[in-house]
Amino acid sequence: MYVALAVQSHLIYAIAHKKSALHGRRAKWPSKERPHHIGRRMGLFHSRQRSKSCWSIGMRKKELSLPHVYGLLEPGPVVLLATSMKGRNNVMTLSWHTMVEFEPPTVACVLGNGDYTFSILKKTRECVINIPTLELAPQVVACGNASGRGIDKFEQFGLTAKAATTVAAPIIDECYASLECKVVDTRLVNKYGMFMLEVLKAWVDPSNKNPKTLHHRGNGVFMVAGDTIRLPSHMK
Amino acid sequence: MYVALAVQSHLIYAIAHKKSALHGRRAKWPSKERPHHIGRRMGLFHSRQRSKSCWSIGMRKKELSLPHVYGLLEPGPVVLLATSMKGRNNVMTLSWHTMVEFEPPTVACVLGNGDYTFSILKKTRECVINIPTLELAPQVVACGNASGRGIDKFEQFGLTAKAATTVAAPIIDECYASLECKVVDTRLVNKYGMFMLEVLKAWVDPSNKNPKTLHHRGNGVFMVAGDTIRLPSHMK
Repeated sequence: MYVALAVQSHLIYAIAHKKSALHGRRAKWPSKERPHHIGRRMGLFHSRQRSKSCWSIGMRKKELSLPHVYGLLEPGPVVLLATSMKGRNNVMTLSWHTMVEFEPPTVACVLGNGDYTFSILKKTRECVINIPTLELAPQVVACGNASGRGIDKFEQFGLTAKAATTVAAPIIDECYASLECKVVDTRLVNKYGMFMLEVLKAWVDPSNKNPKTLHHRGNGVFMVAGDTIRLPSHMK
Repeated sequence: MYVALAVQSHLIYAIAHKKSALHGRRAKWPSKERPHHIGRRMGLFHSRQRSKSCWSIGMRKKELSLPHVYGLLEPGPVVLLATSMKGRNNVMTLSWHTMVEFEPPTVACVLGNGDYTFSILKKTRECVINIPTLELAPQVVACGNASGRGIDKFEQFGLTAKAATTVAAPIIDECYASLECKVVDTRLVNKYGMFMLEVLKAWVDPSNKNPKTLHHRGNGVFMVAGDTIRLPSHMK
């Protein structure tokens, strides 16, 4: 586990800084950001020694007006779906979602009926859709590989739960955007595992103009968001 | 229009070749690929002089087994949804879709009820989901800006319609992947504009391992697919 994650952290650092790990050449690590430092900062190694003060990234999030929410999900990023039941938080990795309405922003999310989050969402009808970026790739994978039935994924994978304002489910502080949601339609839950969610409140880090979101191509292969271009489109 | 598209072609070339157009520096054009040559190749300028022999990219597509289809749509690319009614083809740009089932591969697509394609899809219950890459950005934008009620978008924007094998709707030859689909559930069409589509046959260019798909962030801002990374995920 340690070795695998160290390798992944090396890879992630290289991608984030446009180094060449994918092509077999060894990237140079600045002394302050060698893999084990990144792993430690992410809370994956030596998590008990991790200082809370490391996690300042999420503090930059500001409220986003609801008509702009679609632009966060329309590109198709992997998300971390957070729930809470009886005071216990959980989180799952999810790629099957789409916008359905601009206003109020409405999102269709498709879950497997064996997922622990599926049963929580049916009961509590609340969640927070958190959007991670490349730096959180180890947590995205770890949350997808494990079930929250037996473990506290926040504690286990070094994620920080912050109180949301309209739902009991938590905001993940390390994610660059978070959408507080309630379930508004369950008609397709039994047949397709599809929950219709209305976004009640949205938060985003406004300094992150070109977030390096993750996009799953299947079987552990992820596309990392690349350049941003502006085209003369009249589409909303 | 000419100037705008020439600028866009310049930008697209720069992105595709990792040049610096986004940062204000002028990219160098190889003599064979100056903007007007790219525009001509795309059929946007001097389209009447364009030779059909230019469009060989789509000929490389091979059949993809249906259990692998989800990996094409799960990253959230902009797609070109092609339909056909009474022998007349149409195509629209669409970002609101999600996988719903692995097998048979089932996709939820959300359309506006004012879209011409909405009415065609309700009547014909067939379509082809075509996935474009960066080179087709001008067509993606043009198809999104125009309605097919008054024009033939294939002719107008230089797209090549090829016969599909299971539906009357066409494959767009220039797209790197195409999914022949039939509508299997219309229960959420009236409320959400959501069509459930089953993929009957899939085609992909196997040589394109890291397709530069487009991902809409809203109001004409697109993220272009970046690097691909492999992580130790157990998720399908």
